[in-house]
Amino acid sequence: MGDSNPAKGLLLAVLPWPEEEVRDSLKQIEKEFPELEPQYFFEKHAEKESERGKFEVPDDLTARAVVLATLSWLPKTPEQAPNLKLIQCFSAGTNHLAAHPIYQTTNIPLTTVSGIHGPQIAEWVIMMDLIHSHKYLDFYEAQQRCEWSQARGMKIRDKVGKTVGVLGYGSIGRQVARLAHALSSTVIAYTASPRDTPESRRDNGFIVPGTGDADGSIPKKWFSGLEKEKLHEFLSEGMDLLVISVPLTKATTHLLSTPEFQTLHASNPHGTYIANISRGKILDQDALISALENNLIAGAALDVTDPEPLPKEHPLWRTKGVAITPHVSGLTDVYAQRGMMVLAENLRRWREGRELVNEVDRRRGY
Amino acid sequence: MGDSNPAKGLLLAVLPWPEEEVRDSLKQIEKEFPELEPQYFFEKHAEKESERGKFEVPDDLTARAVVLATLSWLPKTPEQAPNLKLIQCFSAGTNHLAAHPIYQTTNIPLTTVSGIHGPQIAEWVIMMDLIHSHKYLDFYEAQQRCEWSQARGMKIRDKVGKTVGVLGYGSIGRQVARLAHALSSTVIAYTASPRDTPESRRDNGFIVPGTGDADGSIPKKWFSGLEKEKLHEFLSEGMDLLVISVPLTKATTHLLSTPEFQTLHASNPHGTYIANISRGKILDQDALISALENNLIAGAALDVTDPEPLPKEHPLWRTKGVAITPHVSGLTDVYAQRGMMVLAENLRRWREGRELVNEVDRRRGY
Repeated sequence: MGDSNPAKGLLLAVLPWPEEEVRDSLKQIEKEFPELEPQYFFEKHAEKESERGKFEVPDDLTARAVVLATLSWLPKTPEQAPNLKLIQCFSAGTNHLAAHPIYQTTNIPLTTVSGIHGPQIAEWVIMMDLIHSHKYLDFYEAQQRCEWSQARGMKIRDKVGKTVGVLGYGSIGRQVARLAHALSSTVIAYTASPRDTPESRRDNGFIVPGTGDADGSIPKKWFSGLEKEKLHEFLSEGMDLLVISVPLTKATTHLLSTPEFQTLHASNPHGTYIANISRGKILDQDALISALENNLIAGAALDVTDPEPLPKEHPLWRTKGVAITPHVSGLTDVYAQRGMMVLAENLRRWREGRELVNEVDRRRGY
Repeated sequence: MGDSNPAKGLLLAVLPWPEEEVRDSLKQIEKEFPELEPQYFFEKHAEKESERGKFEVPDDLTARAVVLATLSWLPKTPEQAPNLKLIQCFSAGTNHLAAHPIYQTTNIPLTTVSGIHGPQIAEWVIMMDLIHSHKYLDFYEAQQRCEWSQARGMKIRDKVGKTVGVLGYGSIGRQVARLAHALSSTVIAYTASPRDTPESRRDNGFIVPGTGDADGSIPKKWFSGLEKEKLHEFLSEGMDLLVISVPLTKATTHLLSTPEFQTLHASNPHGTYIANISRGKILDQDALISALENNLIAGAALDVTDPEPLPKEHPLWRTKGVAITPHVSGLTDVYAQRGMMVLAENLRRWREGRELVNEVDRRRGY
């Protein structure tokens, strides 16, 4: 980014994307924040988590950094970065940084890019559900055989008037809701804590402009509570699609198992299609396989499995009605640019002394 | 539907769906219009068009029919049905009836179910485009090999900020627009005649509730005109997706050929994805194949081909980037029920002496 100008505060970026992907974004930031000087380092993404964040940033730059944009790298100690005032992390969670002294012993505001995954993951969910209900894979296979066969199209079901249950109404769930609403499906939402007031239904995190459900006005019904009884109330609504977008916690581990699949089946004998884009462990995978074998549910689209990668010999790969993708639903070629949008928003708020977006509550852990 | 009651007007239905599919709809109609008595006949759908409409309806019923719901069957002569006041056809077009004396020599209002195909066809378009940009078929093939491979997810592109061109802004194009808008894409529309006023942008046909773009407020830009120059203006907007939803006429035959693919490429070198759900002949198919081979466009999803069925040996089946389905995008398991919604709406309007929805202008032909 040119020669260093010590009169300016340093915006240090250590990110696993080639600089050209974010060059325009950084130029815009430089223009909007002339008091900052960006310095970009490309830290090649390591396949193994244990090898990430090992990048070497020159000590003098670390010492001058006022703002840090990072995925895995942090200064080794707080003392190395005495000027650091803001850390914008380019992931949705910060578990991978939670053991670090900067996380543990400082109060330097730490923000995430939570919200930037919403569009692409919601697209994945709707795509998988459409593929299922429009029977596209039958036609794809027929095309491989150069076979024109309309009879395969019998019983195609469209989305008008169908019910979509969104388990976890965060940025991803809200964009799923937006798409489902455009498809003229009915959306029902489930959250851990009650959302009885308009204020409690708002999305206060970062939202990709033009997406989501900022004011929480789309769901026709809201359900909440951590008790199984409450969950079953929600699952009894006759869902055609159930989207799992709750975070993995102790309470959500194996949240859905045989009783839940039975409950889904009881209110929709045609079969609910399940899409999981959260974490594999939220579904009891053995129970899922047997629910599919027993036609309790119509199918499952899984971008996450337990474990990951899913071993070659695992029966889930070949279970009837299961579509697996290898934890890619959050990918997009504009991921880094979109992260820079969050950084820019936080720089704006920081300069004006306003509350940051997506700031991590270190005690709560997110 | 029980014994005949001569005091009531006969609503005669001759349709290729088993009666149970529409039993509830007919009951609702009976309740709302107690002056009508429905009689349903299931005319099994013949594969060959020349064999359709041959069903034999008892003469006395034909003579009493006041309203007719049909797909292909018509009374042999106008004289056979002297009481007939309204014909609700269960297809979007009426070309297949245009040579019939009832079409040619009477003024009995003839209405179509145009509009009921919008949701499912728009879903097909968005599904195909998502499959392309999310590279799902790569993952599907990997699943067949039980292979977890994230690297295939590189360069996944999402829909935020992308441009969707809708060539023909009828009920299908409008629901595509609604979905594209929810995806946060920008929509541009092309129509044959100019739509410069709010009134001209309205959709006056039947709209499945909760779908479409009734007031035409979604497109950011409108283009019109039958000249190539006007079309090329539209195609120069840097489209990521081009949806073909114009009817086939002399003017739209081979509307898109090499110069058009070149124009698309010039404004979006990344490549436009084309979806055709109208008629195969609108695309110059040889030019399409060569545009794909020369990377002028990114791919094509075709629910219609030229000819249909597409012969097994046709090169289109195996052209790189082509996804073919056998003219099934309009199918849905609720087709007949949705047609009954149009019939009910027209009965309401007919009773109140209001303008019917989707009435065919016999001179214009649609």
